[in-house]
Amino acid sequence: MYTQMEYAKNGKLTEEMKLVAKIEEVTEEFIMKGLAAGRIVIPKNVKHEINSIGIGEGLTIKVNANIGTSKDICDIDLEINKAKVAKKAGADTLMDLSTGGDIDFIRNRILREVPICLGTVPIYQAAIDAQLKNDAIVDMTEDDIFNTIEKNAKNGVDFITVHCGINKLTVETIKKHKRLTGIVSRGGTFLAAWIMHNGRENPLYENYDYLLELAKKYDMTLSLGDGLRPGCINDATDILQIQELLVLGELVERARAFGVQCMVEGPGHVPIDQIAMNVQLEKTICKGAPFYVLGPIVTDVAPGYDHITSAIGGSVAAMSGADFLCYVTQTEHIGLPDIEDVKEGVIVTRIAAHSGDLIRRKRIASRWDYKISEARAELNWDKQINLAINPEKVKTLLEKRSPTTTAEKGCSMCGDFCAIKILKQYMKSEH
Amino acid sequence: MYTQMEYAKNGKLTEEMKLVAKIEEVTEEFIMKGLAAGRIVIPKNVKHEINSIGIGEGLTIKVNANIGTSKDICDIDLEINKAKVAKKAGADTLMDLSTGGDIDFIRNRILREVPICLGTVPIYQAAIDAQLKNDAIVDMTEDDIFNTIEKNAKNGVDFITVHCGINKLTVETIKKHKRLTGIVSRGGTFLAAWIMHNGRENPLYENYDYLLELAKKYDMTLSLGDGLRPGCINDATDILQIQELLVLGELVERARAFGVQCMVEGPGHVPIDQIAMNVQLEKTICKGAPFYVLGPIVTDVAPGYDHITSAIGGSVAAMSGADFLCYVTQTEHIGLPDIEDVKEGVIVTRIAAHSGDLIRRKRIASRWDYKISEARAELNWDKQINLAINPEKVKTLLEKRSPTTTAEKGCSMCGDFCAIKILKQYMKSEH
Repeated sequence: MYTQMEYAKNGKLTEEMKLVAKIEEVTEEFIMKGLAAGRIVIPKNVKHEINSIGIGEGLTIKVNANIGTSKDICDIDLEINKAKVAKKAGADTLMDLSTGGDIDFIRNRILREVPICLGTVPIYQAAIDAQLKNDAIVDMTEDDIFNTIEKNAKNGVDFITVHCGINKLTVETIKKHKRLTGIVSRGGTFLAAWIMHNGRENPLYENYDYLLELAKKYDMTLSLGDGLRPGCINDATDILQIQELLVLGELVERARAFGVQCMVEGPGHVPIDQIAMNVQLEKTICKGAPFYVLGPIVTDVAPGYDHITSAIGGSVAAMSGADFLCYVTQTEHIGLPDIEDVKEGVIVTRIAAHSGDLIRRKRIASRWDYKISEARAELNWDKQINLAINPEKVKTLLEKRSPTTTAEKGCSMCGDFCAIKILKQYMKSEH
Repeated sequence: MYTQMEYAKNGKLTEEMKLVAKIEEVTEEFIMKGLAAGRIVIPKNVKHEINSIGIGEGLTIKVNANIGTSKDICDIDLEINKAKVAKKAGADTLMDLSTGGDIDFIRNRILREVPICLGTVPIYQAAIDAQLKNDAIVDMTEDDIFNTIEKNAKNGVDFITVHCGINKLTVETIKKHKRLTGIVSRGGTFLAAWIMHNGRENPLYENYDYLLELAKKYDMTLSLGDGLRPGCINDATDILQIQELLVLGELVERARAFGVQCMVEGPGHVPIDQIAMNVQLEKTICKGAPFYVLGPIVTDVAPGYDHITSAIGGSVAAMSGADFLCYVTQTEHIGLPDIEDVKEGVIVTRIAAHSGDLIRRKRIASRWDYKISEARAELNWDKQINLAINPEKVKTLLEKRSPTTTAEKGCSMCGDFCAIKILKQYMKSEH
């Protein structure tokens, strides 16, 4: 046996399961059953020494941060720094999406220097290598793709995004159904272009069994990418998106039968009233597979604020049953995030996840809200600061905006007319 | 006849109704019927020269920005500046919540210098005057309260928050039902303290008919305040909150019978899965009266990020039928906002409102998203910037993060590997 799923199916409790059960305050049996059924994953490559985390039904919602170079901005130290900042800010997982510089080197430095559950999108590297070698992405071979995947697996990558749902059928559908923004997933585009150019089936779809073998050997979790996720509100929940989801639903069953852990990725740009439906659809079509959403972003009009448009969508997705939120930073649609954007992106996405956890894991998640509100009622500023999701930010704002605030006074918003102080005074005088 | 509601009840179309119908792209009859029924308000004091706006069922969601001095931060020019910045950023209404300095002077400067629908909370000024005169808020008299309200009405204030729902009964309930954060509304606290101290009924409740007369004379819209709104997730949707809502429901009917326009204010701190229910409850108990929500904030743990926790709650409220969103800035729970906080607060709340309008007024609201996404698909950066909710922010981020970006290249996120560019290339080569 290689994978957590296989151990679970065979009733063997692993250290990983025990740790996750403890962190999540659920029984070990709950974790084992969830893993066996494929409703929970523990993405952890057998070669990677990290603390296990669980993602899926009944567990707290997890947060991923994307980092990585591009051709234009390629400073490896900067990316390592982003990885560390993201982890410190509370990200549960990282994805290295590097497309510039020595991608092997970057990945291995992260694996060595930042002990956190790591994901990648190997098709990027395969495509870029082909571009460098042949000056054409579409000239990458099946071997190029699978060799890159194997390299990632051997290095210790815990989960990979694979756009297996883009196939000849879905590419035909693209030509029939007009979209405003076409395909916005890079991996999806690479593969769609490859299929169109070569007139052949997507290797990741055609050789899915081989992909499963590779994944199984290292217990690398597959994150089934949504290459056809909508790139704008106009294209949300269209035939293309759902057609691909149906393919993913079939692939989930094959992975489970093979004992390979998998998650399903989701949109994208979605009007707020379609988010719950999208989550329910994934949960039914993909039989409860953990749902990993990018955003969703609830409007297209706010570049520069997409950490917020995605926090809105992410919260609603979390409330509706999504399990794993990929952060979106304020620079989405504009450029790569800097260190501060990464930090803010993680914190804002944690807010979205926590607002969902207040529903999903109420007993556990609400302790934090209770404690900080208790501190607020006591006008205990130090305690409030320490309990805040970002104490530094509260401190800075407090110093700037309420310079005279002390434990005895209210904040500068109300000053002497602090509701809490006044009510206390009169409630007391009544007794 | 004095009020828009009375004109509407009598089938007389006013210039105000015509303008609102035109802006909202609905029929004049729709506005007139909504006004007559009390499901729509046009808050506009007969003495105030402003462009009319409509708030309520079937109309686009409106955004309010709070400004105002406190004892600690009292710079009148700064507040006037905030008012101007809020208007420029797209706020539909302003509330002057000043509690420091010469409050009459500040209000009158705003009315003179910033032509926008203006609201106030006269009980603040009445309480502060009493504090200055008698060194005790609870020594304010009924006359103090009503004289302050009349002064606001005469000055041209378009809507006032009045905490009429706090009465002897609700104050008794406060003593019975334990809350973690008690009362967090300042106006609510002033009146609860007044009732406890004086052992008498809330003048705004007891003399509600007189309040209606005053409001009618100037067509000043009443915003029925929720003095018992929850101040933390733990206290959300409790007996106190709903008991007050029931009182407000009765007061709405009395205002309507009298021909006075009114709205109802709502929470506060609410777990995300209770927001739709809160909106439905207001809409049923208060018979479709426009619902004006503060936030709601979906978690207590993020001081410094409450523009985001409230954008999440505001979007869900908007999707669920709320009509009017009060902004919350990042400094909520910490201190008074500065100019930049005001601007960001308005923009973020507009994002929440717009995400709701994409559902509520789809045909109209989605044009904006369509256009910016079209620009994105065309890789037309200038057009994207101009269509963004905050073009300046996009420009700044683009210059910093994607220095080499031109109309022909992708952004620094993907560079040459821009999905849109690649797909275009291969879709073309197929034909």
